[in-house]
Amino acid sequence: MGWGVKPTGRAPILIRPATRADDDSVWRVIEPMIREGETYPLARDMTREAALAHFFKAEHEMFIAESGGAALGAYYLRANSTGPASHVANCGYVTATEARGRGVARAMCLHSLERARARGFRAMQFNLVISTNEVAVHLWQACGFTIVGRLPGAFNSPRHGYVDALVMYQAL
Amino acid sequence: MGWGVKPTGRAPILIRPATRADDDSVWRVIEPMIREGETYPLARDMTREAALAHFFKAEHEMFIAESGGAALGAYYLRANSTGPASHVANCGYVTATEARGRGVARAMCLHSLERARARGFRAMQFNLVISTNEVAVHLWQACGFTIVGRLPGAFNSPRHGYVDALVMYQAL
Repeated sequence: MGWGVKPTGRAPILIRPATRADDDSVWRVIEPMIREGETYPLARDMTREAALAHFFKAEHEMFIAESGGAALGAYYLRANSTGPASHVANCGYVTATEARGRGVARAMCLHSLERARARGFRAMQFNLVISTNEVAVHLWQACGFTIVGRLPGAFNSPRHGYVDALVMYQAL
Repeated sequence: MGWGVKPTGRAPILIRPATRADDDSVWRVIEPMIREGETYPLARDMTREAALAHFFKAEHEMFIAESGGAALGAYYLRANSTGPASHVANCGYVTATEARGRGVARAMCLHSLERARARGFRAMQFNLVISTNEVAVHLWQACGFTIVGRLPGAFNSPRHGYVDALVMYQAL
């Protein structure tokens, strides 16, 4: 199956809360993203321990996407800020390399929007969407996000050098 | 002396690194800002201990602005993000209530831009400039920042309700 093809005939994608008992699965999902360094502002040489501590921070609500028992993706939901700005949510989604093109990121994003609404957040903000990550930019737009800002050269891409990052936002 | 008047005839503003030995001075500067809740995304009921721990975080370089031995302001400089986005700096400036209109924020901002350049940062970003804080918006523009984004209703102002916040940015 290629990119963008619906997962017909596959087991459905299930999204459930993740715990530190899922460390191995979450690490398998996030390690290639960290080593690649093209999509998240995380050091490419980050250790497994540091990366898992980051994703499983106390203030993060962590979820894992699975199909037929295999981990396809993971994401966290958190308040993007505190006090008078704590009504704005933020998420970080990672799709397993081998699960790309199966709608996993879309499923996680829609799940997170629902969860954020249920928790009473009034908006969701992505602080640093890498402009070269066009699949993600289009997907977030399809999920209701608007580009509300552009940060010139804010991300140092191993492949492209300094590239712009986008701020994306939607009211809930 | 009124707003915007130059501090002629006053002792000059000196900016120096701050340490936890400056806790009392820093708290005197930041407490009214926190209680007011109009400019920073910090809980208005934040304790002295939590607020000082926030400002003096390990990854923050803290400075204090003084004149004739009295604390007029305080600010921190930090990397706004990590890994491939760690070349973008961020600051949080607070002017003492009684020192407003004396050019303290401008002095701190210019000091921070110099310091950020010296540390090798390539840009500086403010993530959440409250749109109703017009004095600050104009001052940052005068210091070289551009409005690169607008976050609708991202800040819950005690005085104005939900108001927009701005993302401001400048290359160094």
